[in-house]
Amino acid sequence: MAARKKKKASRKGQGTRKGKAAAKRKAAPKRKASRKGTPKRLTAQEMAHTQREISVAEFFAKNRHLLGYDNPSKALLTAVREAVDNALDACEEAGILPDILVALEQVKVGSTSEKASRTADRFRVVVEDNGPGIVKSQVSKIFGKLLYGSKFHRLRMSRGQQGIGISAAALYGQLTTGKPIRVTSKPRPRKPAHRFDLVIDTRTNNPRVLREREVREFNHKTGTRIEIELEGRYVGGQRGVFEYLHQTALANPHVRLRFKAPDAKEPHEFVRVVAALPEQPREIQPHPYGIDVGTLIKMLGASEARRVTAFLQQEFSRVSGRVAKQMVEEAALNGAKSPRRVSRPEAERLYEAMNAVRVMAPPTDCLAPIGEQALEEGMRKEVEAEFYTSITRAPAVYRGNPFQVEAALAYGPPLPADASARLYRFANRVPLLYQQGACAMTKAVTSLAWRNYDLNQPRRSLPAGPLALLVHIASVWVPFTSESMEAVAAYDEIHKEIRLALQECGRRLGQHIRKKQRHLEAKRKTDYITTYLPPIAEALRDLLALSEPQTKKVAKVLDSTLRRSRSS
Amino acid sequence: MAARKKKKASRKGQGTRKGKAAAKRKAAPKRKASRKGTPKRLTAQEMAHTQREISVAEFFAKNRHLLGYDNPSKALLTAVREAVDNALDACEEAGILPDILVALEQVKVGSTSEKASRTADRFRVVVEDNGPGIVKSQVSKIFGKLLYGSKFHRLRMSRGQQGIGISAAALYGQLTTGKPIRVTSKPRPRKPAHRFDLVIDTRTNNPRVLREREVREFNHKTGTRIEIELEGRYVGGQRGVFEYLHQTALANPHVRLRFKAPDAKEPHEFVRVVAALPEQPREIQPHPYGIDVGTLIKMLGASEARRVTAFLQQEFSRVSGRVAKQMVEEAALNGAKSPRRVSRPEAERLYEAMNAVRVMAPPTDCLAPIGEQALEEGMRKEVEAEFYTSITRAPAVYRGNPFQVEAALAYGPPLPADASARLYRFANRVPLLYQQGACAMTKAVTSLAWRNYDLNQPRRSLPAGPLALLVHIASVWVPFTSESMEAVAAYDEIHKEIRLALQECGRRLGQHIRKKQRHLEAKRKTDYITTYLPPIAEALRDLLALSEPQTKKVAKVLDSTLRRSRSS
Repeated sequence: MAARKKKKASRKGQGTRKGKAAAKRKAAPKRKASRKGTPKRLTAQEMAHTQREISVAEFFAKNRHLLGYDNPSKALLTAVREAVDNALDACEEAGILPDILVALEQVKVGSTSEKASRTADRFRVVVEDNGPGIVKSQVSKIFGKLLYGSKFHRLRMSRGQQGIGISAAALYGQLTTGKPIRVTSKPRPRKPAHRFDLVIDTRTNNPRVLREREVREFNHKTGTRIEIELEGRYVGGQRGVFEYLHQTALANPHVRLRFKAPDAKEPHEFVRVVAALPEQPREIQPHPYGIDVGTLIKMLGASEARRVTAFLQQEFSRVSGRVAKQMVEEAALNGAKSPRRVSRPEAERLYEAMNAVRVMAPPTDCLAPIGEQALEEGMRKEVEAEFYTSITRAPAVYRGNPFQVEAALAYGPPLPADASARLYRFANRVPLLYQQGACAMTKAVTSLAWRNYDLNQPRRSLPAGPLALLVHIASVWVPFTSESMEAVAAYDEIHKEIRLALQECGRRLGQHIRKKQRHLEAKRKTDYITTYLPPIAEALRDLLALSEPQTKKVAKVLDSTLRRSRSS
Repeated sequence: MAARKKKKASRKGQGTRKGKAAAKRKAAPKRKASRKGTPKRLTAQEMAHTQREISVAEFFAKNRHLLGYDNPSKALLTAVREAVDNALDACEEAGILPDILVALEQVKVGSTSEKASRTADRFRVVVEDNGPGIVKSQVSKIFGKLLYGSKFHRLRMSRGQQGIGISAAALYGQLTTGKPIRVTSKPRPRKPAHRFDLVIDTRTNNPRVLREREVREFNHKTGTRIEIELEGRYVGGQRGVFEYLHQTALANPHVRLRFKAPDAKEPHEFVRVVAALPEQPREIQPHPYGIDVGTLIKMLGASEARRVTAFLQQEFSRVSGRVAKQMVEEAALNGAKSPRRVSRPEAERLYEAMNAVRVMAPPTDCLAPIGEQALEEGMRKEVEAEFYTSITRAPAVYRGNPFQVEAALAYGPPLPADASARLYRFANRVPLLYQQGACAMTKAVTSLAWRNYDLNQPRRSLPAGPLALLVHIASVWVPFTSESMEAVAAYDEIHKEIRLALQECGRRLGQHIRKKQRHLEAKRKTDYITTYLPPIAEALRDLLALSEPQTKKVAKVLDSTLRRSRSS
């Protein structure tokens, strides 16, 4: 905000301003807003002078809540999450089993003001990994520039995807404490690590390196360690850092994760359960279904292919020579034409043809779901209940992006019968702890009729009853409702897939409940038999003067006959 | 997406790709991801080559749901809203009573594919105003560049604030139909209008003008007319264009608004109710409370003031000479020091001192609330009920930004007793129709105990009962939860103010309900008297052999005695 040198509406007792700031911005004509009366109404010419470009860093500094920095406790969690997500992505891409340390250190500030100390504490967030490290030339941009990264311009499943997260954490730290982010990275095992202290120039969205040096000591062969000082609040509970790390460990059993809480002497360790990395997801091309006509026109114009058919095969997923030929035929287009010569009407026809021709579902090897078994095991580990089930759906596609939905369900005591169901949400293995109400997963859950399973369900709400649900979406591009990646946008296709996954879980729950009811019914009948049979046998014995063995035999025959009739 | 020229993971039957595209991006080393096996694990050096800058236009093209373009019906509404918001802002800033026409024309596409026609229709959105117009040199940037505008770099209440809205609508149209936005603007009454057809180059986030010319015919002396062709769906109901315009007219009684629906022959007119513009809100400086230490450090470094005291007075709202002196004293700082020479520890002390010293609440003339009376009238016009109340709170401040909350409430039949309460949400006079669940207003409503007013309230939900609520937040900077401006972020201060406003309405509702209950109780007693008095009088007559006049007199005395005792 500082750099704006805004005209100010002067008020009484504030008339000391000098003309310097105004003079510097010479393009702007003097506005009359500073007089005491009504502000001056402007003409188009005057308005033109107030128009300016906005840097992305300025935008997000002012809109920090879009990135998850609405309040101190959420800010702390968000910064940790961005760093851990990046560490996990880097390790997996480099084929390294992740070993990550998260440490939170409370920083004492000589606070004279009660207000400042009341609203938030100050923390140093340290996240260290054994990943591949970052080459020297990239460090400043990765941490000191918003909208910079490797994950945006590709279709590949990863935790981060926007090129904002970690630089935004650095920006938030800088805004709330004035301190630079410190990055120590060691990309080569036999060379020293390099350390940077850097800030973001918000006016230009460019990094400014304050200090740069080599350091010898580093805890891993290669890796990265970041330190951010920021205003935050350390909380427990369902939205705290511990819970986030706990759920991260659940969805990533191949990770060794240590966490040193601000008050702890020793780090808590979430141990590695699986000693193998998950299947490395593959990068893919967009799928023909769901791409926009505007995007297609742009792709055609920028294509290097010589023929439209080649263009279709090269730039799209699942388009074989035969399919490409079908498409151009359907569009009444010459397949040998250069893509750059395709006219707008032809492009529109091609667009429609691409949607009309049957194309295989996108390849599945670009997605790495957690898997039904691991999901159910995770649920069993996390939630004590009576019945568990899980499902991994086949991949589907929204707007050309493959995605895959998984769901798990736990039901029955000791889960409390009178509380709202707990919903665990994951996107690309990252737990989502905030904005549950805005999430497609929540919407899918509330859209189902849980009353069918003896659960109480207030209108448009989560069911109440002994139920825990887990939903995971894996995609090459998860559409989050905000840059803070806290909730998944309810695209129709995604909503539908989540519903189908939950419905299948629900169907199995229904079977379980009905089976249980049959068992109960059967048990009730058995109880009747057990209760009434002895007196009947005794009465028969007395009536017919049977011997003890005879009585026993009669009782046995009666018992088996009744039990048979019960089960029919 | 087209321009990315991404490496592709080749699959069987797709081996025809040429090396050209790959050759062009020579910086990137050949990755081995195209072999059939597992994708290659990367080193830090290889990863460095995949790092790239992301343009804001690319970012929002891929994340269009952040801007409100998740689905066709919402997209249509969002585009209309951005254009109308801009038109209203421009008119008011220029001191012109707004006269706005919104027309939706369905565009026929020669659709051969069932899929395309099933998912969405194509519309031409036309929005025309009598505002000040836009000078020629600014048109292409305002409509063809994201993050460009006059409203971001100032603290002033306006509908738009980010410099994204209208260019994002153009971008969405371009992506879904391939068509440019057409802008016709007439900034000078006696000169012809200029017309632009332009598209956004997403790779660079810059406008590309396809065609530019002068036009003679224009419906107003000055003004702007935009035409966007886009994929959308026209729906009615609580989230449709009509409802948005209807609520806009309610909150802006000074606007003449005409709407031509796609199927209508004549436009529907929302007539102008008030022939005067609302008070023009003033632009202000940030308030000392709530500013970040990082921002303060930046402001100090960029200041042109000679002394810290002058800096404080010039750059902040409500800082008089006396207050500035108090601040530097509290911070043990020499007030005559140059702001640019203030050290980091000194800045931190100053930051705390700024928060510790008592500063007047921000000026109120930067905000233009709707007003208690207009709010209640709006409610009465919109909702038929029994009891109405409204309140406009005094301005408060969050993160240095003044804001003001208003609330209104309608209660009682004929509002249905068994449905969820209806909540009308407004921010800077703009109706918010989406993301109710994610909004601070909703959270404030659900956090209150409506059971106190005989309303049923499922946990964490809106109350159910004969209730309609309206909340309006006016601010120089409304913190929306996403760029699509659909829900307000729940900053503590904002949450608290909304709660207080609603509580006051609730308190009045409580009084009304208690009064009504007393009336009912009284009526019940009266009914008893009316029921039982005649037989008693008759019994007395028979018993004491009274004459008819005597009986009447006795009855009258009894009646008045009983009624008196009733009211005690």
